[in-house]
Amino acid sequence: MPLVVVGSVAIDNVETPHERRDNLLGGSATHFSYAASFFTSVRLVGVVGEDWPQEHTQLLADRGIDTSGLSVVEGGKTFTWTGRYEPNMNDRETLEVELNVFGDFDPVLPEQYRKAKYVFLANGVPSVQLKVLDQVPGRRLAVADTMDLWIQTQRDDLEELLGQLDGLVLNDSEAKLMCDTENLVEAGHQVRAMGPKFVIIKKGEHGAMFFSEHETYVLPAFPTPNVVDPTGAGDSFAGGMMGYLSEKDNFDPDTLKTAMAYGTLTASFNVEGFGLERMQEISRDDIEARMRDFRQMLSF
Amino acid sequence: MPLVVVGSVAIDNVETPHERRDNLLGGSATHFSYAASFFTSVRLVGVVGEDWPQEHTQLLADRGIDTSGLSVVEGGKTFTWTGRYEPNMNDRETLEVELNVFGDFDPVLPEQYRKAKYVFLANGVPSVQLKVLDQVPGRRLAVADTMDLWIQTQRDDLEELLGQLDGLVLNDSEAKLMCDTENLVEAGHQVRAMGPKFVIIKKGEHGAMFFSEHETYVLPAFPTPNVVDPTGAGDSFAGGMMGYLSEKDNFDPDTLKTAMAYGTLTASFNVEGFGLERMQEISRDDIEARMRDFRQMLSF
Repeated sequence: MPLVVVGSVAIDNVETPHERRDNLLGGSATHFSYAASFFTSVRLVGVVGEDWPQEHTQLLADRGIDTSGLSVVEGGKTFTWTGRYEPNMNDRETLEVELNVFGDFDPVLPEQYRKAKYVFLANGVPSVQLKVLDQVPGRRLAVADTMDLWIQTQRDDLEELLGQLDGLVLNDSEAKLMCDTENLVEAGHQVRAMGPKFVIIKKGEHGAMFFSEHETYVLPAFPTPNVVDPTGAGDSFAGGMMGYLSEKDNFDPDTLKTAMAYGTLTASFNVEGFGLERMQEISRDDIEARMRDFRQMLSF
Repeated sequence: MPLVVVGSVAIDNVETPHERRDNLLGGSATHFSYAASFFTSVRLVGVVGEDWPQEHTQLLADRGIDTSGLSVVEGGKTFTWTGRYEPNMNDRETLEVELNVFGDFDPVLPEQYRKAKYVFLANGVPSVQLKVLDQVPGRRLAVADTMDLWIQTQRDDLEELLGQLDGLVLNDSEAKLMCDTENLVEAGHQVRAMGPKFVIIKKGEHGAMFFSEHETYVLPAFPTPNVVDPTGAGDSFAGGMMGYLSEKDNFDPDTLKTAMAYGTLTASFNVEGFGLERMQEISRDDIEARMRDFRQMLSF
């Protein structure tokens, strides 16, 4: 089943303790789409400026990603993010953000996108995320990401959104911020009680936790020794997960857990290179090979 | 097979965001022994003062733990630790340490302990840990814990110890401290290259990582919502793990991984109460029931 994703498309400048790289293809919808494209056909909705290099669009199109929902604003500049990672490669500092055309992002889904059954709302203003949901009334599964900024400043819109979602993914610090507990198990269930049928808490190098009414579980991250650039790992996780659910056209508990595992693995490849570089080197076979290792790792 | 553990036996005073409890039965060898006692016969070596309540020894004896190696120093006072946990229940501050009789701990193993095949050296001065190894020349498996203090101040002795160990367990911050990397996967293998055949990095609520020449894997912690007092979780982990290895009298790779899982579960029970309170409520059956849940959680 086709999968629609709405989110940022960006130019990233990334500084790690070892290297600085500029003009990387970045953005939440980009990392998501690329990861999901190993599993299903993806329809991307985003906005870029005139400075957007055509070869970036081509790179996505080469993976079969439908970019007809990617608007180019004449005279505009693309969203740019510049960040620096701490030596632990988990914490990062945002050095510069230029929202540019993404600041006025008002996503309008192309007609052929509106019958989508699987929808992912990458991190964005909750009111905009709500407007996207209105455009896919026949959806079967809508999952969103969010961030600290919206939790702190757009709580009402966010809560309205939560009531309309099937799933929410957010990271550990965001989950704690939404609740009155430092215990992630409690936090996951508290967030779930706000509306979504399931909640996934991403813990970076420590894996991801899943919460539904009847289930609570954790999967560890795949222990890659080669962490080059964590940017987009969370979106790549969501992309692998949603891509697999769309491929199976199913989201029963067993399929959801397997999807979590696929998300874990696409994220593990994503961090092994700057931007999408490592992702461009792999195939579905590589993901499946790592899946065999992952299952083996968790068998005893 | 009997399992010998040498380490601290203490009185703990623990403050959490919710409660303060004094005069708890604590210490590394204590938490280790109790957890291991669900799997095998344990022989404890430690030292306490005259103030040590006899009922604490009785509590251990009731679990079948051999306490003939627990010396009582006349006129001495027992090691006392007082600590406060941050709201996240992971970070803690040591408020007061009184080493007392543990400051002069010079473990001498009773004759019947010296033929032990399975030995665990709980956190202690590396030179003392080395002296213990000399007393169990016929051992099949010797595993030790260590801490930041020894890594920083007793590096030579610690490295000598590493050369004689089969396994080392340490926590994530300690592993990073021993190496020149913030990447735990690299750190694990770097520590392993210092001597031990395997290294286990404990990550608290995020689980534990295993490193041997041919294997690298991670198991998540069991997601208990009920974290009351994390004190002793690492020792309880080691106790469950070593207890299972001793029970099986085997430490091939498959058995080691299952042992890691049992350690994960004994630790998960340990944190559900102050001191050993929760551990006193459970049986092997409870551990096995949680093991079924844990295997189920990691199956997809």
